Order: sequence, then C-alpha cells, then structure tokens
Amino acid sequence: MSVTIKLHITAIASAHLHNTFKKTSFATKFQSKPIYHTNSLAPLVFSQEKMTSLPSSSKGSVIIKSSLIEPDGGSLVDLVVPENQRVAKISEAGSLPKVKLTKIDLEWVHVISEGWASPLKGFMRENEYLQSLHFNSFRMKDGSVVNMSLPIVLAIDDEAKEKIGTSSDVALVGPDGNLVAILRSIEIFKHNKEERIARTWGTTAPGLPYVEEVITPAGNWLIGGDLEVLEPIKYNDGLDHYRLSPKELRKEFDRRQADAVFAFQLRNPVHNGHALLMNDTRRRLLEMGYKNPILLLHPLGGFVKADDVPLDVRMEQHSKVLEDGVLDPETTIVAIFPSPMHYAGPTEVQWHAKARINAGANFYIVGRDPAGMGHPTEKRDLYDPDHGKKVLSMAPGLEKLNILPFRVAAYDTVDKRMAFFDPSRASDFLFISGTKMRTYARTGENPPDGFMCPSGWKVLVKYYESLQAQESVLAA
Amino acid sequence: MSVTIKLHITAIASAHLHNTFKKTSFATKFQSKPIYHTNSLAPLVFSQEKMTSLPSSSKGSVIIKSSLIEPDGGSLVDLVVPENQRVAKISEAGSLPKVKLTKIDLEWVHVISEGWASPLKGFMRENEYLQSLHFNSFRMKDGSVVNMSLPIVLAIDDEAKEKIGTSSDVALVGPDGNLVAILRSIEIFKHNKEERIARTWGTTAPGLPYVEEVITPAGNWLIGGDLEVLEPIKYNDGLDHYRLSPKELRKEFDRRQADAVFAFQLRNPVHNGHALLMNDTRRRLLEMGYKNPILLLHPLGGFVKADDVPLDVRMEQHSKVLEDGVLDPETTIVAIFPSPMHYAGPTEVQWHAKARINAGANFYIVGRDPAGMGHPTEKRDLYDPDHGKKVLSMAPGLEKLNILPFRVAAYDTVDKRMAFFDPSRASDFLFISGTKMRTYARTGENPPDGFMCPSGWKVLVKYYESLQAQESVLAA
Repeated sequence: MSVTIKLHITAIASAHLHNTFKKTSFATKFQSKPIYHTNSLAPLVFSQEKMTSLPSSSKGSVIIKSSLIEPDGGSLVDLVVPENQRVAKISEAGSLPKVKLTKIDLEWVHVISEGWASPLKGFMRENEYLQSLHFNSFRMKDGSVVNMSLPIVLAIDDEAKEKIGTSSDVALVGPDGNLVAILRSIEIFKHNKEERIARTWGTTAPGLPYVEEVITPAGNWLIGGDLEVLEPIKYNDGLDHYRLSPKELRKEFDRRQADAVFAFQLRNPVHNGHALLMNDTRRRLLEMGYKNPILLLHPLGGFVKADDVPLDVRMEQHSKVLEDGVLDPETTIVAIFPSPMHYAGPTEVQWHAKARINAGANFYIVGRDPAGMGHPTEKRDLYDPDHGKKVLSMAPGLEKLNILPFRVAAYDTVDKRMAFFDPSRASDFLFISGTKMRTYARTGENPPDGFMCPSGWKVLVKYYESLQAQESVLAA
Repeated sequence: MSVTIKLHITAIASAHLHNTFKKTSFATKFQSKPIYHTNSLAPLVFSQEKMTSLPSSSKGSVIIKSSLIEPDGGSLVDLVVPENQRVAKISEAGSLPKVKLTKIDLEWVHVISEGWASPLKGFMRENEYLQSLHFNSFRMKDGSVVNMSLPIVLAIDDEAKEKIGTSSDVALVGPDGNLVAILRSIEIFKHNKEERIARTWGTTAPGLPYVEEVITPAGNWLIGGDLEVLEPIKYNDGLDHYRLSPKELRKEFDRRQADAVFAFQLRNPVHNGHALLMNDTRRRLLEMGYKNPILLLHPLGGFVKADDVPLDVRMEQHSKVLEDGVLDPETTIVAIFPSPMHYAGPTEVQWHAKARINAGANFYIVGRDPAGMGHPTEKRDLYDPDHGKKVLSMAPGLEKLNILPFRVAAYDTVDKRMAFFDPSRASDFLFISGTKMRTYARTGENPPDGFMCPSGWKVLVKYYESLQAQESVLAA
C-alpha cells in the first residue's frame, strides 16, 4: 500500500463560471483523507479562490451529460467539401491563382478542416491574428470568448502575392502538387516575423525549432481566408486509422458511453510514470462518482523537432503499452492529434487544451513545463516549469475545461518504480530525461526496472539502433 | 468652407456590448451628409460588423448619465493612507525590511495609489503578471474582465530579496530615502526579463528606452503585494497642480456637468493638426446630441525617452495653446497623466485608454502608431501604424469605451494649414515629424504658417536654444 500513498494529483481549475457541476476543492478532499500527503499539495495550489475541482464526490449526485463539453463557438467546424460538390470545387480550384503549401502548412489545413481550432474557419485574417497574438483569445459576435493562443496563419512571399493580384479566392496546392483546398475572401497582410516570434515564444533567440523550420524561411505576407478543403487530408503512412477527427472522437466517446473524458497530450514515449498518473486519474474520477471515465491518449502527430522520437515509433511504443496492459484498452482511446508542435510553452499549452475541448474532452491533464524545451542559447528551461499550468488555469475561453495538473514523476530507487517526486527525500529519486533515455537506448543499457514496460522499451531500442546504423552509414 | 470638407474623423468601436446608447454607424452618417468624403473613410473602417459609434444623432434622445463611465472593477482604487492612520503606519514602515525605489518605480507607486490602474491594488503578484503578459487583461472573481496590458511590477535584486527574508510586508523607500509606502502580503517571483520584454514589446532588439532605463538594470526578482501609500506622491516641480487624480478629474467633470469626456493622450507639443482634430471631435459630439462634451488634454508626465520634449516645456507649450484660444479653456481640462512611457505600441495604447476610463473619460482618441517609435535597430516603424487602433478596438475590457480613431494630419501646402492627409493629393502635404520640428527650432527657422500657434512655437524655440547652449558648454 505504500505506493498508493505516494501518488496523488491535484485538480485545479480557474473560475469555472459555466461549469454545471457542483464544485468541491480537491485540497479539501485530501485533507479529509489522511491517506494523502496534504503538505505536498501546497506548491500546486495557486490561489484558494481560484481552486475548483472535479464534480461533487457524493456518489450518485453527479449529472451525466451525453455531450460532455460544447465545441468552442457552439458547433464543430467541418470544412471538407461534401462529396456531391467535390468535382465542381476541384474544377473551380483549377482556375484560381495557386498558393503552394509546405508539409507543415498542410498539417494546419488538416487541423483547421476538422474543427480542432473551432470556431476558426480558415487561416487567420489580420483581426484574428492580432487577437491571437495579443489576447490569446477571440471575442465572438455574441460577446463570448474562445481561446486561440497560437496564430494559425499561412505565409506567402512577394511573388505569390503578385500572382494572386486582385483575386478574392485562391487555390491551395499541396507539397506534391495536388489541389488541396480553396481559400475564400482572402486578406493579405504583413508578416512581421520578429513580432510574431517574440509574442508567441517570449524570446527571439535563434534555435527555436518551429521558427527555424517554418517562420524564418517563410514569406513576408500572411494570407487569411475561409477554407474549403477538397477532400479529407490523408498521409498514407499506415497511421491514418489513428487520425480520428474531433467528430469521430466525440462519436466514439458517445459509443462508449463515457461520462468523463480526460485527455493526455504527449510527444514522447509513455513510461510508467505517465501510466501511473493516467490510471490514478481514472481511479479518482470513479471515486468522484463518474461511472465510465475514458482516457484519450493523444500523441501529437505533426511537426516535431529533429531529436524527438518520430511518430511511427511512438505509435508502436504506445500500442505495446496497451498490449502489455499498462493502460487498459477498454477505457483508453489512442488517437493522433494532427497539430504541428511549436514548443511555445504556456502559449502553446492553451492550444493543446483548447483543441481537446473541440474533440470532446472535459478534463485535461497538464504536467511540468508543458510544450517547453531548453532555452536555445542559455543553459536553462525556456519557460518557468510552473507557468504552463498557471497560465492554463487562467486562460480566457478555457473556463469550461477541468484542468488537472500533476507533479513530476521520477524513478523511486527505494521502491524501484516510477512515482511522483517527493522533495522530502529527493536523493531517492532518479530523473530520466529524454537525453538520458536516449543514452540508455543507444548504449543498449537497460533503464531501471519498472521505468517502462519491456515491450515498449524494445521499440525504442530498435529505433535508436537503426538511428545509429544510419549515422554510421552517413559517417562512412 | 473648403477646410471643413477635408476634416473628418471616423468613430469605430469594437463590440460595445455593455454600452447603453443606441448605436448608429458613423459611416452611415457620413453617407447621408454629402459634405464629407465618404471614400476616404474606408481605410479606417476595419469591419462593418465591428462598427458602432457615437450615440444616436436624434437630438434630445441621448441619455445623459452623471457618472459617464464606471471605473474598472466597479470602484476607484485609492491607496493613500487616511491622515489619522499616517503616524502609526509610518512608524510601522520604519520597522519593516526596506526596498529602495527608483524614480520610475515611484511614478508607478503614484499611478497605482490614485487608481489609474484600478482594480490593481499594488504591484502585480505572479498570477496578475502572467495574465497581463499573456492576455493583456485580468479575469475578476465575478467573471468580468478588465484590461491590463502592461505588467506593473517592482523589481528587486538578490540582496534585497535576502534582506526581506520571511517578512510578509516591506517598506518602500523613495530615491531620496523617505518612507513612501508599505507593501503587504508580498510575493516574490522570478523576473524573466527576456520573456517580459519579448511579450510586452514584440521585440528584444537592444535600444528600447524603457528596457534600457528600467528593465536591464533591474534585479532578477519581482515583488508583488498590496500597497498602502503613506502620503500623496508630490514632485514639487511646480507642476503638481496639473497632477489631478482620477477622483479629482471625475469631480471636475461633474462640476462642469460634462455629458461626454473625450481624452487625448500625448507626449509631444500640440500643433494645429491636433487642435483641429480635438475641436472637430467636440463639434461632432455636439452634433450627435451631447450638450457639453469636455476635452481631457492629457499629456503623459512620467518617464519619456531622452529626445522627447521635457514635461515642463510641454506644459508651458500647452498653456500657450489654450491662452491663444486654439483650444477653448471653457471646455478643456489640461492635466498630467503620471504614468511612465513604455513605447510599446499596441500593448501600451491599451494601458493609455484603460487608465482614462478610470479617470472618467468615455471617449478615447487614437491616432496613427500610438505609443510607437522607430525600430531601435532597423529602418522602419517598430509597429504597424494601424495595429494600435485595431488592437485597441478589440481589446478585452475596453468594450465600454468609445474609441475614436483619426487620420494623420499634415501641413497642407495649398491651403496653408494643418489638415488631415488626403492621399489623393499626397504631394500637397508636408509631414512635419518630431525630428523636422526639432531641426526648425534648433536652426531658428520658422515652421510653415499655421503649423502651431506662435506663442507655443516660441516655447519650443526657447527650449531648443537652451539645449544647444548646454551642448556648447559641454562640448567646450
């Protein structure tokens, strides 16, 4: 039983004005149950007045809603052209000025087209861009506010702008030359890269992956407008069956009769610390009165930096974790979140949470330093590791989402398993960073027992071996 | 009459959900009155659906409210200790750990103490700082939102932090060593300067005046808490009678029975283009049915960059403009806005507008590139000149304020007077920049007739002559 004692999460949420559930404080719950360490909660409790929590623990009194959470703006955006109009639209697109998309632009078309960014209906026009950049949110016509922390924009260069001329619509062409979409009622405005970078990342230091890959090489204009996507975006990489749209996810949650959906965003392999947390969250939701909480294990599938583990390897690793029973397939849905990664910390974590609202998740798990990375030029984290969850708890438009922060997990060398870090016996814990994990895998050394299920670990070893083989070939 | 035809402003306001006045579109008004050029309005009209305007023009139907606009948070913050508690508080302050204020910190104490930043009650704690940095606004306990675009923070260094130890209150000591205030229930958190600068200015380029003067030399910690100011902040520079608090301004507007107050923020001498605009705004408000619109001519009195005209010279120049009758003293209040200047463009203009809500102004005039400056390292404006008014019109918490954008004024060489720039005959116009104005004044050359009233111009000539004399002395 000693293990259970060490595991706990705290649930906070900012002023949940629209939440219909009766609130009780998680802290209060902990205090009334001596099994949990109440002290260690303190650093996570930002402010008593901001603390709300999971629904009432008085079992049976929870209101179960069939639709767990409304999409932002009230209805899910779906921008894929209906089949019966496809031929006509493709023909029209053929006659329009063309704008060429990069691989990452296409990932954004995918994201927008399926409604992850609802109520956004296309690439941002200037009014939307400015609201996103300055306020991380849009004010809708009815006065309501939706979160929108990342500028979702399409850049073009002078030549493309010239070619568009006075046309009000353009066709978007994929990297392979195929017609992808029509962008309607376009607006072209200046792409001030410096300002965009500074306001999105809070730094302009060289070496930010998305900046180097996407923004620096991009044109000096942004083109906004309404999207009509000619057919569903597919990647044909053997993983499309994992790419469930928000509509499909919502349907699946309904099919499983979920009364709570808790989303876990990740871009790394799942280790036992993650699993522990997810299982514990489920247990806790059951304890709160939910009958069927479903986990959305939701790895990010778009652009990631070069030293992150590639998507196909991660998906294989995740499936091993489920096969191994570390996570229960009955109550877990594994799907790909198609967004590219910005590594923009507190700004980006809002996007990660907001998109999951649209996918039907009403609980969002947030860890230490979400969407963070090392500072590209200084020896420190780019973001304060606590800012992500703090900003998330206060973000405009996310009031209806229940935010579940968790403490960092590490390997407990005494109990020989992953556990939440206990600062009172810090020296007992071993932090296994991505770099350390890579070193283990590269050198063929096994990580400590209980760090990850063996079959999942094998997937990583195989990947790093292949990487080393490739490097040898390149070096030869 | 040809002059009148060339002058026009447009009034827009973002979704004014809480405004009680019936809205009519200014554009509609122009269209029904052939005296105005409707075409030239187009570039100022951001979006038809966002356009609202001054109250109904049907004279007599306007609702006159004695309190024109509510302070943010519902009541004006006043943090000056009541006289009968002063002795006790001063004695208490003497016993507390001391934090030394710079001249500019003291300007912020002044600003906060009088309620310009209502509902802010002291230097920001981390939750407030993060909301300001990421959302330019605070969400209040009741779910309402107030604008708060600039981080109003107090920096301390390691040594000061050490000295404070575990004390929950500290005393603030002015640059002259006098006890200024108590800061209660303090919170000390990291001062990530790079992130603060990037998110506030949208650039981290070296050479931003406030950054170089205030942030770079400051400590690596921020200290937030509730302020109790021991006595009203005075400067004893002969200008304190101009430093009316929001409470005093509101009283004065009431005394004059103002039914509309339109604020004009400036940090430069008033030329006839400004005057034209202000007079035209008043005329227009009268036309709309207001009986007694009052102009708040509100020069910024805190820190400005070295090449801006100093406050005392500007105040003398402004008083000449009123003496000369260019502005009507009966309907104008000249007062000093005590805030320091950030030169942070679209982020700062929100602060300028928000503070005037607290001072009782319900109309705010915004020009080209408000709070902007040249990029410190590149040959361009730091901000898109239109972004200020666009951001202002969409800013959270400013919905209740009527935003009045105006077009840039320039010297019309045909009509020999200041007029709004007409792009259709661009070559007729002469732009007299600050640099150009300085050159005129330094070389003793007169600006074109009608640029500025002669007595006001004389003030500037005298100032620049004294500056040259000083420079000669220094060079000798």
